[in-house]
Amino acid sequence: MGKKAVILASGGLDSTTVLAMAKAEGYACYSLSFDYGQRHRAELVAAERCARGMGVVEHKQVVLDLRSIGGSALTDSSIAVPEDAPDGIPVTYVPARNTIFLSIALGWAEVLDAEAIFIGVNAVDYSGYPDCRPEFIDAFARLARLATKAGVEGRPIEIKTPLLHLSKAEIIQRGSALGVDYAQSVSCYQADADGRACGRCDSCRLRRKGFLDAQVADPTRYQSL
Amino acid sequence: MGKKAVILASGGLDSTTVLAMAKAEGYACYSLSFDYGQRHRAELVAAERCARGMGVVEHKQVVLDLRSIGGSALTDSSIAVPEDAPDGIPVTYVPARNTIFLSIALGWAEVLDAEAIFIGVNAVDYSGYPDCRPEFIDAFARLARLATKAGVEGRPIEIKTPLLHLSKAEIIQRGSALGVDYAQSVSCYQADADGRACGRCDSCRLRRKGFLDAQVADPTRYQSL
Repeated sequence: MGKKAVILASGGLDSTTVLAMAKAEGYACYSLSFDYGQRHRAELVAAERCARGMGVVEHKQVVLDLRSIGGSALTDSSIAVPEDAPDGIPVTYVPARNTIFLSIALGWAEVLDAEAIFIGVNAVDYSGYPDCRPEFIDAFARLARLATKAGVEGRPIEIKTPLLHLSKAEIIQRGSALGVDYAQSVSCYQADADGRACGRCDSCRLRRKGFLDAQVADPTRYQSL
Repeated sequence: MGKKAVILASGGLDSTTVLAMAKAEGYACYSLSFDYGQRHRAELVAAERCARGMGVVEHKQVVLDLRSIGGSALTDSSIAVPEDAPDGIPVTYVPARNTIFLSIALGWAEVLDAEAIFIGVNAVDYSGYPDCRPEFIDAFARLARLATKAGVEGRPIEIKTPLLHLSKAEIIQRGSALGVDYAQSVSCYQADADGRACGRCDSCRLRRKGFLDAQVADPTRYQSL
């Protein structure tokens, strides 16, 4: 039995790179994505496509309707997705999203007897969300040791964040070296049904700049370019 | 605008008491329950009945299918509910359940601009679940300060656990003094469709002993008594 890891997979550039890194570290990978009522449904298709393409043992999609809670441009169609770089925490912030996703990953990791959870959070080229910061991850890792049967029995589940201190350009360079096909991934907050990106939202801006800075050809399919 | 609180409401004895306590403290109460694929569906009916009966501002039921993760007698019909007092952490433990529930409550609390989340965990007469211990709650409170926009902006959401150090008998005495109608609540892990309790599972045992110790008449409706 090899070591197992749960990978939070959004179908975007970061989580696809993380999956490649986990695989390269020798983990049997179990990818997890969430149908949380996000307006960018193309990410669910991309998450499964990327996961299967990279040979995961299992891909699971959990339904959790965060629309019923509301409060974000990503889950509430009455709030527009901004196309300028925002000040402070933007309206695309989904309240407590990473806490919720990591919690469910923790439950699955415990059932699988997995050693680690990988999450593609990044504290360099990121959107200013509080739950992407290193101190948040440390606090979750501490919680995970106390919250689970595995932790109580001395087998804490590690929270791995290999992108935390990398720039978007460095992430793209690492992923390219591992053979990631970024054309399969979708980062856009308002991609069309075919997964083509708007090229204008905050997430598209960060991604496009990353390819430029990395001096890697951008394989992203844009809607109007 | 009065102060608001989100109350995790399972329809059981503990969370119904907590709701009465939060109300007595002057909070406008928002109750939250989860349709997580639990075999004891009667608790969802009980949760809403208790919440409405106690005048909550809003009752929300969030769908989250934890059956897809498995690993517990409460969500996996192939694992039997034990009827003896178990050694160690029992099979009714749902991996990371309180972490998951608190995370979603945190998201809703943030959207509501609530000051507190109430959860009826108890470290005295409990089933040995790791995520009912005081150190777990402390770790979650710390996480909540770091995870949210509210916390970053200096308005951390408090995690309130008024039952933590009370015995089941004390909980029943406090609730009775606040006028809680325990006949409306359902604690049984395998209640029938009408909400009548088996009288034999771990949860029933703890509840029945609580009424005996509290010297309060037990209004629980049992299946065969």
